[in-house]
Amino acid sequence: MDKLQNIIEKIKKPNLSLAKQAQARLDSLTKPRGSLGRLEELAKQVVSITGNLSHKIKKKAIVVMAADHGVVEEGISAYPGEVTGQMVYNFLDGGAAINVLARHIGAEVLVVDIGVAADFQEHQWLMLKKIDHGTKNMVKGPAMTYDQAVKSLEVGIEAAEKMINKGYDIIATGDMGIGNTTASSAIAAVICRTDIESVTGCGTGIDNRCLENKINVIKKAISVNKPDAADGIDVLSKVGGFEIGGIAGIILGCAAGRTPVVIDGFISGAGALIASAISPDSTNYMIASHCSAEKGHRIVLDKLGLKPLFNFDMRLGEGTGAAIGINIAEASVKILNEMATFSQAGVSEKNG
Amino acid sequence: MDKLQNIIEKIKKPNLSLAKQAQARLDSLTKPRGSLGRLEELAKQVVSITGNLSHKIKKKAIVVMAADHGVVEEGISAYPGEVTGQMVYNFLDGGAAINVLARHIGAEVLVVDIGVAADFQEHQWLMLKKIDHGTKNMVKGPAMTYDQAVKSLEVGIEAAEKMINKGYDIIATGDMGIGNTTASSAIAAVICRTDIESVTGCGTGIDNRCLENKINVIKKAISVNKPDAADGIDVLSKVGGFEIGGIAGIILGCAAGRTPVVIDGFISGAGALIASAISPDSTNYMIASHCSAEKGHRIVLDKLGLKPLFNFDMRLGEGTGAAIGINIAEASVKILNEMATFSQAGVSEKNG
Repeated sequence: MDKLQNIIEKIKKPNLSLAKQAQARLDSLTKPRGSLGRLEELAKQVVSITGNLSHKIKKKAIVVMAADHGVVEEGISAYPGEVTGQMVYNFLDGGAAINVLARHIGAEVLVVDIGVAADFQEHQWLMLKKIDHGTKNMVKGPAMTYDQAVKSLEVGIEAAEKMINKGYDIIATGDMGIGNTTASSAIAAVICRTDIESVTGCGTGIDNRCLENKINVIKKAISVNKPDAADGIDVLSKVGGFEIGGIAGIILGCAAGRTPVVIDGFISGAGALIASAISPDSTNYMIASHCSAEKGHRIVLDKLGLKPLFNFDMRLGEGTGAAIGINIAEASVKILNEMATFSQAGVSEKNG
Repeated sequence: MDKLQNIIEKIKKPNLSLAKQAQARLDSLTKPRGSLGRLEELAKQVVSITGNLSHKIKKKAIVVMAADHGVVEEGISAYPGEVTGQMVYNFLDGGAAINVLARHIGAEVLVVDIGVAADFQEHQWLMLKKIDHGTKNMVKGPAMTYDQAVKSLEVGIEAAEKMINKGYDIIATGDMGIGNTTASSAIAAVICRTDIESVTGCGTGIDNRCLENKINVIKKAISVNKPDAADGIDVLSKVGGFEIGGIAGIILGCAAGRTPVVIDGFISGAGALIASAISPDSTNYMIASHCSAEKGHRIVLDKLGLKPLFNFDMRLGEGTGAAIGINIAEASVKILNEMATFSQAGVSEKNG
């Protein structure tokens, strides 16, 4: 808890005067003012986060938090729970979608076993930080203890600190956990104070009958556990998941370390809700990559006040949308650093 | 005209059976079916265009067509006409936004002087194909002759063929031409059969008084020239621009050469309208990168039946949005080629 408290106290607002300086520089470059739209906004956000007007993105990482969910026994997923562990091997072997996209953008993928049912050997790109072999079934009581929830946040913070210390200057969040849209919908319903139906979708691809069951399971979990919307750790412990806590921890660790953190889809959004409930200032460090096809993600983004960069109807998780988001953030910073000014290029400025 | 006719006859529909095969492969990969949304759609489009299920994008190019516009003397732009030529030097020196984004995605930038008022020396990345020193003022008569319009299309075709022959396997369209949103709005109004106000915006940044003048100039140009909406070459010659014809030519050349062509913003959209009026099948080869901030672009995209990948409120042109589009298309093809299947990775498939 000391580690978490210490990190929360370190999170300050970004340096907005640098955003102003960045805009002045952007306005001196050979293009009509504001004509690069969101790329300009992104560049300003990155420099105000890092505190460096000439910030370059050189080392990029996607951190994939993996864990299992006791609630899977309620039949809420299209895939069997064993897929979580199988996918961890797929990540380490480089065969998953996130590996392909990470290679495409020149990023590394760090996987964290924060609570997978299966056990793993050591591996260069795997952090062994298992809190338990999956959460408990949240319809029967809390998914985890309060201490475990704090621990999951601290594992995320540790992962962020490790990568920042290794020189990674932008980090994306990713998730793997069969059953985790159920936990994320529960978190979204509680923190966004909305009805469960509005934030519960088909996840990896369940049919309408299963969706009805999933909604009922979430209703029961919330009614049994009565999470306190104002207490992010309470919500996380009662209806969350270890990987969701880990994602929230990555965000808090990045915010404290003045490092931009690119948020992936619905599960990462649930993690971001937990992070923002714990430290509202942490939202300033978040870059929302995409709005996913998963029902409820738009509501989550609105609650966070984040405008996603794109909507590709993706619903895979793993950090796949965030990988593309990193690439766009990198482009925005290059615009700020590498373009010629009007005077350098001898180009005439606007009339009158 | 023979060259153009020959190319039009070569444009066939893409191979849709390959799109089916690609979907079958996508469904065998370690992810829920359809969960990569538009990336899956893009991958299918690319392989159906190229006719190769294992198509890899290795060489990427952005072709920037540059030309001046006689209508600038009507005071329709925020920038003086000389900026077109100055920006050509900026492109060749690597200082413009498109150079930064091209380096970011690993693409080359080929500039084509298809009608700039200024004259240039030879340069490795400049094609000297000047048709005239800018178009004529379209409020006083046709912007160019019918023969010049055909010639501008043929220059675009030649540029596309040159790049395809050099092994470039995806090409993006870009533009530079002070005054060219005026010509593009005129083309959009005629071909989309809509009122001029709906497709006329602020371009590089004119104020409301100038916008009113711009709308009146376009009205006058259309009323003086009476372009025939059904004849793309007639529209191009009367209210178009050399670079817009060049862009239409790139698209036709790519369609004939079975090469995906990524369309940039509003000006490239006007070129795409001309291309689709000349060869409706050419739209199958177009990948719409973004919806720009320029008023009317959405109407143009709807007319073409294209769904843009993203909306970053960009309004720069040069191919800047298309560069990011190339990068996303490349990612989509890598997903198809590089991911592990369920059986390769030993991952369990969906329940039941």
